[in-house]
Amino acid sequence: MPTQGLDYRFRICLHDIDAAGVMFYGHLFRHAHDAYEGFMSALGFPLDGLIRSGCRLPLVHAEADYMMPMHHGEEILVEIGVEVLGGARFTLAYGFRDGAGALRARAQTVHVHVAESGVGAAPLPDALRAALDAAKI
Amino acid sequence: MPTQGLDYRFRICLHDIDAAGVMFYGHLFRHAHDAYEGFMSALGFPLDGLIRSGCRLPLVHAEADYMMPMHHGEEILVEIGVEVLGGARFTLAYGFRDGAGALRARAQTVHVHVAESGVGAAPLPDALRAALDAAKI
Amino acid sequence: MPTQGLDYRFRICLHDIDAAGVMFYGHLFRHAHDAYEGFMSALGFPLDGLIRSGCRLPLVHAEADYMMPMHHGEEILVEIGVEVLGGARFTLAYGFRDGAGALRARAQTVHVHVAESGVGAAPLPDALRAALDAAKI
Amino acid sequence: MPTQGLDYRFRICLHDIDAAGVMFYGHLFRHAHDAYEGFMSALGFPLDGLIRSGCRLPLVHAEADYMMPMHHGEEILVEIGVEVLGGARFTLAYGFRDGAGALRARAQTVHVHVAESGVGAAPLPDALRAALDAAKI
Repeated sequence: MPTQGLDYRFRICLHDIDAAGVMFYGHLFRHAHDAYEGFMSALGFPLDGLIRSGCRLPLVHAEADYMMPMHHGEEILVEIGVEVLGGARFTLAYGFRDGAGALRARAQTVHVHVAESGVGAAPLPDALRAALDAAKI
Repeated sequence: MPTQGLDYRFRICLHDIDAAGVMFYGHLFRHAHDAYEGFMSALGFPLDGLIRSGCRLPLVHAEADYMMPMHHGEEILVEIGVEVLGGARFTLAYGFRDGAGALRARAQTVHVHVAESGVGAAPLPDALRAALDAAKI
Repeated sequence: MPTQGLDYRFRICLHDIDAAGVMFYGHLFRHAHDAYEGFMSALGFPLDGLIRSGCRLPLVHAEADYMMPMHHGEEILVEIGVEVLGGARFTLAYGFRDGAGALRARAQTVHVHVAESGVGAAPLPDALRAALDAAKI
Repeated sequence: MPTQGLDYRFRICLHDIDAAGVMFYGHLFRHAHDAYEGFMSALGFPLDGLIRSGCRLPLVHAEADYMMPMHHGEEILVEIGVEVLGGARFTLAYGFRDGAGALRARAQTVHVHVAESGVGAAPLPDALRAALDAAKI
């Protein structure tokens, strides 16, 4: 059963909008990452603490599908969960829903645990793996 | 044969870097879009003019693969071209190369021509299609 | 007495940090603007509604003082209020405080009400003026 | 006489524009910083090298005046120079001019050289001071 408190809300603000009058597509990834930071904190692994401890989880892939443009002032709910949990990597899935529950966009990010040497992948730490496993969707 | 002058260069700047000491993954899409704007201008279709004329080409998909982290001060060359050209949509491919020619990241964006009514896709205008066709890779 | 609910909180996130390991100075203005959007909504004048109604309040001046660098993961409270209320313009003041109450930065923005013609300043609408007056500090 | 090659050009891109249809005011500081990075490189002190060497020049103040809104597709020239050169600090002035030479905005940033201990100001290194002195306006 998924851990509670993992969803994230934001309101689309003035600077999210671009010259075409809708949210700039690249900003979806900024909001996805803010949701990811909240998610990791809720799991007990805030990113700033992980970075200070030397644990790095860089992205090797990111993608998004845009179903409907998003507009200034709309409130968006980001649902986030673990889609795939591998030995050294995990895939997060994000759904961006509006106030009516419609899916406006979805995204996916793939993260790899980097070895302390900085070269190559390394198995995910056990405690982090267990927390991610509890957030599988 | 590809149209000349389509590549784009940028230097990774202070604010591109995040708390993990490497370029924030979301910023790759900002740079990709800047390359796309230069590309469209080189083809004779600058985006600001397209938007003023009522022609919209919103993204329906974006993705990126990150091979090697990018660092402050590095100069990056973005190679850009048309990968797929459909009736109402096209796919652009981007390669991000460092000074030694190594591929540090690649990206893809899928754009759809929106009908003037704002609802549904519409065939790409002939002149734009011809220009995109000349930039196929 | 100031209107309630005007303060705004944010957590400094991964992409706020720059290559020097602290929050990029320009991002302070993005957070200030997010606080301003919340402030205007609390006053009953959300920016998206104002823009749709044709009311524009562009900035003519912005400034900030940085007392202490801000770091990844810190939670910041933004206190916001009206410092000066003129005929066609107003000045907002922002204080950025950390969890211990220390003032880490402050900012100021000056906004002018633009006439419907788009040229020159125009008196602030009465209802907006009254709401801003109630938020004076 | 000012060092050559200090000016910087950029084109206002899709994501610079906000929901009000003009460049978001906070992005002016991002462009100012990009001009500053180019300026420091032209002086022989690229920021990435300074940071690696342990030399930090954080901002303690930034401000901007906005004369005329900037629009998508406009090409802007940033003129940059040293306005004040003190013992441990310096002030940079930036002018943002359009293709017709009109001043659309101006900005100012104040930088302080931080002591190696990380606490308090320290005299600017002699070579950096000499380079900044040659770029006085």
